[in-house]
Amino acid sequence: MRRITVNLNERSYPIEIGSGLLDRLHDFTAPLTPTSISVVTNTVVGPLYAHRAQKGLTGVVTHVIELADGEQHKQWAAVSQVLNALVDARVDRRGLIVALGGGVVGDIAGFAASIYMRGIRYVQVPTTLLAQVDSSVGGKTGINHPSGKNLIGAFHQPTAVISDTDTLRTLPPRELSAGLAEVLKHGLLADRDYFERMVASIEAMRAHDSSALAAAIAGSCEIKASVVARDERESGERALLNLGHTFAHAIEAITGYSSWLHGEAVGCGLLLAAELSRLLGALSASDVQVIETAVSRAGLPTRAEGLSALSALEAMRGDKKTEAGQMRFIVLDRIGRATQRTVPQGQLLQALTARGFL
Amino acid sequence: MRRITVNLNERSYPIEIGSGLLDRLHDFTAPLTPTSISVVTNTVVGPLYAHRAQKGLTGVVTHVIELADGEQHKQWAAVSQVLNALVDARVDRRGLIVALGGGVVGDIAGFAASIYMRGIRYVQVPTTLLAQVDSSVGGKTGINHPSGKNLIGAFHQPTAVISDTDTLRTLPPRELSAGLAEVLKHGLLADRDYFERMVASIEAMRAHDSSALAAAIAGSCEIKASVVARDERESGERALLNLGHTFAHAIEAITGYSSWLHGEAVGCGLLLAAELSRLLGALSASDVQVIETAVSRAGLPTRAEGLSALSALEAMRGDKKTEAGQMRFIVLDRIGRATQRTVPQGQLLQALTARGFL
Repeated sequence: MRRITVNLNERSYPIEIGSGLLDRLHDFTAPLTPTSISVVTNTVVGPLYAHRAQKGLTGVVTHVIELADGEQHKQWAAVSQVLNALVDARVDRRGLIVALGGGVVGDIAGFAASIYMRGIRYVQVPTTLLAQVDSSVGGKTGINHPSGKNLIGAFHQPTAVISDTDTLRTLPPRELSAGLAEVLKHGLLADRDYFERMVASIEAMRAHDSSALAAAIAGSCEIKASVVARDERESGERALLNLGHTFAHAIEAITGYSSWLHGEAVGCGLLLAAELSRLLGALSASDVQVIETAVSRAGLPTRAEGLSALSALEAMRGDKKTEAGQMRFIVLDRIGRATQRTVPQGQLLQALTARGFL
Repeated sequence: MRRITVNLNERSYPIEIGSGLLDRLHDFTAPLTPTSISVVTNTVVGPLYAHRAQKGLTGVVTHVIELADGEQHKQWAAVSQVLNALVDARVDRRGLIVALGGGVVGDIAGFAASIYMRGIRYVQVPTTLLAQVDSSVGGKTGINHPSGKNLIGAFHQPTAVISDTDTLRTLPPRELSAGLAEVLKHGLLADRDYFERMVASIEAMRAHDSSALAAAIAGSCEIKASVVARDERESGERALLNLGHTFAHAIEAITGYSSWLHGEAVGCGLLLAAELSRLLGALSASDVQVIETAVSRAGLPTRAEGLSALSALEAMRGDKKTEAGQMRFIVLDRIGRATQRTVPQGQLLQALTARGFL
């Protein structure tokens, strides 16, 4: 088992990474002395793991709240479902929520935890690679608005993150690839050496090699934890973690949050960011090629054939990162180093069309 | 003009109290350099003051969001209305919300500010006595759930509180009385001398005497600010500010948040707390009488004739203050000093029936 700590003073918490952790959740939650535990999961993960999670939570009243699966359900209705269940179960301020599932479950459960009785504790138990390497860490919670992704939400740090690598065995290949997008992102923005090691082990990870996966999770969490520790509420450096994400959010928004997985949109978004970086004179064409090869080997789309460039621009204008009408993007200076920049619309359009937008 | 500071380190903010402040809101918001200002108000306060507030906000794009009036509208639908308006107006992370109205407007606008883009800034411009002496200070925001008051919400401190005493001139007498309930509460829990001065000036306040009202607002804000500074998130001492409120919330819940004003329920709640304190041997019968006289002179109900004691108990069990099934109440040791206690159900019932519950 490996432990990484997110250092946020009184809000610090551990990320535990290893095999078999799901069966001994009690070891991690018992010191928190909760009055009850509400396991929030979805209709796909619940049947696979909720029973084992509950069995691992001995000695405290538990109940399970099962949400519909999919990004298109990351809406207020799901948060309301959780809140109603908490009220019905008379969960009090010392109740604990366990978010058991992927990024969508974590975002919804974490947001519900942040606003139930003005904030109760929650533990992330991510079961997808994407959630284990990225979304379960850092305290961003929230839901989508018809006009934009994650427009409604809160910063609410978990009390712990428990990543059981065994749960990745049941993860569909397409979702494993989606998680690799965030692994590549962390390398691209912070650490060329980590990026290269990850690219070299893509095949092992796609074959569910546990030690390769554990190394990816630990490495990504270390990068993310150190950025979050320096800038919890994204007033500066944390924005770098959005590399590729403004593009990804636009792809998801204009395709109705359904046909592309978030990680797939991020994969393509990384390439769009790379193209933009090249157009701005920051990144070499050969580095763009290196990134394209990596994204492709990860099983992720490198183009967004036929999507509307104008719709994408419109969607990006409503993004949270826009300030005073200026669109800001994370740009790569080289592999392993990112910066934030205001970008002229012309070059944005060029980057989009270079990757299949019409 | 008087200024009181709420000391919360990087979340510290001023409370400005005085006459004519509404016409120069710009003086307070300009240093915040917002990209836009969204004035959230309701259908009663909007027609009276929104235009003046907007005129006072020179040099920045403003728009007005008008909510339905009344505690029964303190629901998700109202928050959603605000969020949709913010999205439609393309408000960005540096946008500022101005909450112009009473406690309900402040709670809804503050909650919307706390979850829009994971938190933007807001300024409270309370226009009722209750909001000026209590609800606009301290960062509690939220909405009601069918099962309990303020069950959904967040701690989100305002960036400033601007209390223009002139706005109290248009306040209906019943609402002015409602505000006096919180003034009396602050005296009862923290300062016998302030309590006695307030009781002595009740008639002047009910006659809209500006200097009497300004003294009440400043004194109440001082008491509340010092409690909040010591315990922002209610892990201890701040709970004392809930004196009378568990009872009040029960009265409001079982009467459907419509026939009693919140402050009226608090007035009666203060007497229920006093009765309970007497039954527990903490408070003298003569002090109960002093409190009854004060509540009555403030124009507030001293009894809840005919309401169901069992429904009240049931409502109180779902209250946020309940932990591990134990109901905790704020009890008076004497006028000017409160403590938190677990209370046996029998004495709770006795207190309820002593004040008209059946």
